[in-house]
Amino acid sequence: MQAAYYTGNHRFAIQPATSQPPQPGEVRLKVAYCGVCGTDVHIYHGSMDKRVRIPQVVGHEVSGEIEAIGEGVTGWQVGDRVAVRPLQPGTDDPSDNGQRHIGKNLKFIGIDTPGGMQAYWNVPAYTLHRLPENLSLTLGAMIEPLAVACHDVRLGELKPGENAVVIGGGPIGMLIALVARHAGANVLISEVNPARLQLAESLGLQTVNPKEQDLVAAVEAFSNGAMADVVFEVSGVQAGVTAMTQLPRARGRIVMVAIHSEPKSVDLFRFFWREIKLIGARVYEPEDFDEAIRLAASGELPLESLITQVSPLTDVQQVFETIDNNPAGMKYLLEC
Amino acid sequence: MQAAYYTGNHRFAIQPATSQPPQPGEVRLKVAYCGVCGTDVHIYHGSMDKRVRIPQVVGHEVSGEIEAIGEGVTGWQVGDRVAVRPLQPGTDDPSDNGQRHIGKNLKFIGIDTPGGMQAYWNVPAYTLHRLPENLSLTLGAMIEPLAVACHDVRLGELKPGENAVVIGGGPIGMLIALVARHAGANVLISEVNPARLQLAESLGLQTVNPKEQDLVAAVEAFSNGAMADVVFEVSGVQAGVTAMTQLPRARGRIVMVAIHSEPKSVDLFRFFWREIKLIGARVYEPEDFDEAIRLAASGELPLESLITQVSPLTDVQQVFETIDNNPAGMKYLLEC
Repeated sequence: MQAAYYTGNHRFAIQPATSQPPQPGEVRLKVAYCGVCGTDVHIYHGSMDKRVRIPQVVGHEVSGEIEAIGEGVTGWQVGDRVAVRPLQPGTDDPSDNGQRHIGKNLKFIGIDTPGGMQAYWNVPAYTLHRLPENLSLTLGAMIEPLAVACHDVRLGELKPGENAVVIGGGPIGMLIALVARHAGANVLISEVNPARLQLAESLGLQTVNPKEQDLVAAVEAFSNGAMADVVFEVSGVQAGVTAMTQLPRARGRIVMVAIHSEPKSVDLFRFFWREIKLIGARVYEPEDFDEAIRLAASGELPLESLITQVSPLTDVQQVFETIDNNPAGMKYLLEC
Repeated sequence: MQAAYYTGNHRFAIQPATSQPPQPGEVRLKVAYCGVCGTDVHIYHGSMDKRVRIPQVVGHEVSGEIEAIGEGVTGWQVGDRVAVRPLQPGTDDPSDNGQRHIGKNLKFIGIDTPGGMQAYWNVPAYTLHRLPENLSLTLGAMIEPLAVACHDVRLGELKPGENAVVIGGGPIGMLIALVARHAGANVLISEVNPARLQLAESLGLQTVNPKEQDLVAAVEAFSNGAMADVVFEVSGVQAGVTAMTQLPRARGRIVMVAIHSEPKSVDLFRFFWREIKLIGARVYEPEDFDEAIRLAASGELPLESLITQVSPLTDVQQVFETIDNNPAGMKYLLEC
């Protein structure tokens, strides 16, 4: 079989690999599609070389079919179509507070361990979620990022009729907007890239370009002065952080989705003054995968519109280069 | 009667004043005691000259007796002993979300309008809370700051048995620690001033001086590795903000009590990584005053120990100078 190895410094190499028999508790998947996540792009840039083990197969947004079953695995059969929840909880730490999905000793499969950009992939059976028959394997590779969005909307306690503002219209921001709208919220996306704005509008989402319009005034108009019940900060940049505290109404919530690798300047006074909440949200729990699969299978979200390109695994190098050169692109899938 | 007027730039002047008949809906109080709040010290420093109207009587931590009753006021009698909840809600704004205690058009009585550092003071009857007979008027002047602490603990959703860390051991931090302990939490105060540390210890509170000990290690030891369920940031300084994100466990809460007039550098990654919540908390709601009075009257909090000094109103200038020169002091009361 073939596997895509990250070999360091903006390089991927396609190399032959030998598929291994599944260990006890594992299954071997025939990988169908593997999506490229922003984290994979960070790896490609060399920003996570301390965490990955070069050369390493990466990738964690996977759909596939079970091809072999390890000892002790029950409830699954060869041929079952699945998505993978790529979390491998470690030893419980007292500071984990029972939250195993963000435990101190958690391993993220596809970053801390080998990933899905290969023809066959062994994963623990407890990571699997069954895909219904009417859900394509292409959309199956969208379940992982969609589960992120479901988690963010759930932790933001978004209710029908509430006003939500999403700062940042990349793949996760767009998925959050779609899930929030499906949950009955009024949604406004703040984004600076014209192509992403156009895509959002083509999906019927309200948009604002904060480089062209005053964002606070736009949210005032959008909400008839009520301002935002929930703000999702997905931009990861200082401008987004500066904006996020200006938009909520009294007792509004801000969901921190973005990964801010450096400390940012934050207007803490606004949290005090309007009794705003900031809610950190990371990855997902099993129920978020269940909800993502339910939503995707319902056909009520225009997920296909978010897939920019599907490419063969052998094009992996070119796909990462394309992503780097096309900030307007959304989701790129590799056919494995 | 006499009144203490803030006349600008670190100056107070005692001047004769004429007590006014209460307007409809108001009562005239014979002020017993008025506490000096950190906000009053900010006013004294000239930092709030845009908000006050010089010369102005300030002060909002008041106990007193009803001395005259305005037209239309029911439920109150001359001689009733009361504390004042110094909030005057304005017109509702759609962005207020029904939170009148922090409404956009709220006036804070004693800052935006004349305050209690005078012998007689007219206030709306809806601001009054009755003091039980067994509660002294001295402690009655502590109800306002104690209500702040009750509000902070309530919004932090602190539960019995949880681990709470209070960053900053001034009057509000100390009251939060006492209320949190009374609510059944294990409490650790982080403070740098030796006299305040000593006072906290004399009240049986656990303490840490982050200038002498590693704060994260101290919280680990205090909590047997579980880390903090709730952190109260009351310091208002960058060191407190830097510390606050390192102390909570997964899904822990940080209550933002301090007034950070300038943006601070915040480790937003920690919010994401451990799904931490930041909860802004400002002033109080009526139920917090009720709870503060209940707690004070129960005698179960050592509130007397927090009163550094009781001085006649005529000493107002000297009291503010003393506060400025004595960072170890806690609560100063003026006898009006």
